[in-house]
Amino acid sequence: MTSLDDLPIRDDLRGRSPYGAPQKSVPVALNVNENTHPIPEDVAHDIVARVAAAILRLNRYPDREFTELREALAGYLGHGLAPEQIWAANGSNEVLQHLLQAFGGPGRRALGFDPTYSMYGLLASGTGTEWIAAPRDDDFELSPETAVAAVLEHDPDLVLLCAPNNPTGTPLGLDTIRAVADAARGIVIVDEAYFEFAEPGTPSALTLLEGRPRLVVSRTMSKAFAFAGARVGYLAGDPATIDALRLVRLPYHLSALTQAAALGALAHSGEMLAMVDEIRGQRERISAELVRLGFAPHRSGSNFVLFGGVDDPHAVFEALLERGILIRELGIPGHLRVTAGTEAETTAFLEAIAVFAPVGAAGAVENRIDA
Amino acid sequence: MTSLDDLPIRDDLRGRSPYGAPQKSVPVALNVNENTHPIPEDVAHDIVARVAAAILRLNRYPDREFTELREALAGYLGHGLAPEQIWAANGSNEVLQHLLQAFGGPGRRALGFDPTYSMYGLLASGTGTEWIAAPRDDDFELSPETAVAAVLEHDPDLVLLCAPNNPTGTPLGLDTIRAVADAARGIVIVDEAYFEFAEPGTPSALTLLEGRPRLVVSRTMSKAFAFAGARVGYLAGDPATIDALRLVRLPYHLSALTQAAALGALAHSGEMLAMVDEIRGQRERISAELVRLGFAPHRSGSNFVLFGGVDDPHAVFEALLERGILIRELGIPGHLRVTAGTEAETTAFLEAIAVFAPVGAAGAVENRIDA
Repeated sequence: MTSLDDLPIRDDLRGRSPYGAPQKSVPVALNVNENTHPIPEDVAHDIVARVAAAILRLNRYPDREFTELREALAGYLGHGLAPEQIWAANGSNEVLQHLLQAFGGPGRRALGFDPTYSMYGLLASGTGTEWIAAPRDDDFELSPETAVAAVLEHDPDLVLLCAPNNPTGTPLGLDTIRAVADAARGIVIVDEAYFEFAEPGTPSALTLLEGRPRLVVSRTMSKAFAFAGARVGYLAGDPATIDALRLVRLPYHLSALTQAAALGALAHSGEMLAMVDEIRGQRERISAELVRLGFAPHRSGSNFVLFGGVDDPHAVFEALLERGILIRELGIPGHLRVTAGTEAETTAFLEAIAVFAPVGAAGAVENRIDA
Repeated sequence: MTSLDDLPIRDDLRGRSPYGAPQKSVPVALNVNENTHPIPEDVAHDIVARVAAAILRLNRYPDREFTELREALAGYLGHGLAPEQIWAANGSNEVLQHLLQAFGGPGRRALGFDPTYSMYGLLASGTGTEWIAAPRDDDFELSPETAVAAVLEHDPDLVLLCAPNNPTGTPLGLDTIRAVADAARGIVIVDEAYFEFAEPGTPSALTLLEGRPRLVVSRTMSKAFAFAGARVGYLAGDPATIDALRLVRLPYHLSALTQAAALGALAHSGEMLAMVDEIRGQRERISAELVRLGFAPHRSGSNFVLFGGVDDPHAVFEALLERGILIRELGIPGHLRVTAGTEAETTAFLEAIAVFAPVGAAGAVENRIDA
């Protein structure tokens, strides 16, 4: 039998394993920051009707410029954005890949701040771009000074700022984004995949786009719009930057089904985003309860909580999995990450994790007696 | 206003324009080799039902391994193929991009035979792979000797064989494919995007896979399955080759909508492919009539016909467009390409082109009098 090592694959791929969280079928899946609320029924009906209409014309190639979708995304984002400032692709990973293909590549460097979204490094390496992971401040925060020092040290062609940051949940201040945009000569990408879960009133990096043609802000419909299965990521930036992405995208990269489904969801953005308040509430509940139990949750502006104070993360991960609860082990010592799901899912998680509360904490004693 | 030239794009992208046939709304669109027959109504209903079910779970990421779809594609292809020998992506362009990402890249070379599918060169350059275009024999044919000589001369890491060849329509014999597979040290890709339109009984390169782990055969649902809008390409090859593609694909690259829609179409492959016979009939009608008119159509195993004997291709293209008929100008001197559509579309095209029949041909005189 032929093995991967027998094949002439690229040298830098040798010995690698494919990316990916395990896809296990469990009653309570809180491992990949999905929105665990299904799409509301009336919205689902409208999406089905739009997709059905698209299926009647599926023999033809889709609109390569996804004009209607760009209009709808511009309308959703607001901030006076025009459709020609919008780009979209199959998930924000593909949006980021397009940016790296256009502005990165061999001999170029992309900079991020670890720990951050692990796909950044993989996307960089997949496009031949050197990936540089600079450190963060204490508690995974990122000050303007720390970020700018790294930009000046490494002189990157692209900077990736995850706001709020995955997997830590840490919000990122506009002061840091502004300072990086001013200091960097390259493209500055602000990944706002989880932006809708920020505290109400938090300003978006979209407010900084005006007059900064090398700044782009990416978003996704996977999280707030409960659309992970549909694969729709997008970004806003200068029209010239969008033109650059047209040079590297595959023609007709967004299917007619994807375009129709996304238009349906965006037509009901108010109802879709109503879920976000409920999820934010569960996130606050998780954080408060983890503190009570003696764990050390980090500040989160997202739909998940990273928490420290876990003696043996792998053992806890396995124990919860045995109870049908899947959370995320990230290789950050003493830490685990959990997605804020429905109220019932949160309850199941909190009951299960209580057993592992650090010894000595008030909640720990109480819950060990219960368990 | 910022222009593309003001931005730090990759040097090899400077001055480039995005790929793409013009997307014009015309009554008779025969320019991009779509299947001009809509999906049969009962099949469309089944696809809608499957997609509707997927929408109910759209908040979750799709099956990253698209297990059911790989099973259905293996079943459709036959030849004893197993699901672990199947890969799929958003259009065969993405399938080819995955192959180039895994087996090409900087310092590596891909070889094809011009004129051929213009995306090959763009995909190669997009992945940093050097693209080498070797010449064909007369009448755009490709003999084993010519192909092997180019392989030995250029020692490519990948070879792309388009069978039948786009944009010429030329069938490619298994003898050439076998000879190239034996001579090449790299990956040999046989692109059978239009295979279903070949003469009944034509053997597929799938029959050569056994014992050749570096040979892969790619297909698409865009053409025979009238699924251009859904973006589903796939390939069959050695399970180790498939593993290599897992290293470069973006996680969750195939949406739940795409997977559900493709499963629906594959469940009705007999009915979907009934359109193919009708289209092949129109292709034969086009070729015969073009000969009668004094044009020089090339041998075609696809759903389109490339024909020579056109004095001024651009003028003819524009004149047909004025009559609402869009065909394809490819930059091959004296040639134009037309897709075989429905009977009515074929009639419209043949009536319009007759006016431009080469002077002196029997059909030309007759039709000039009519016109």
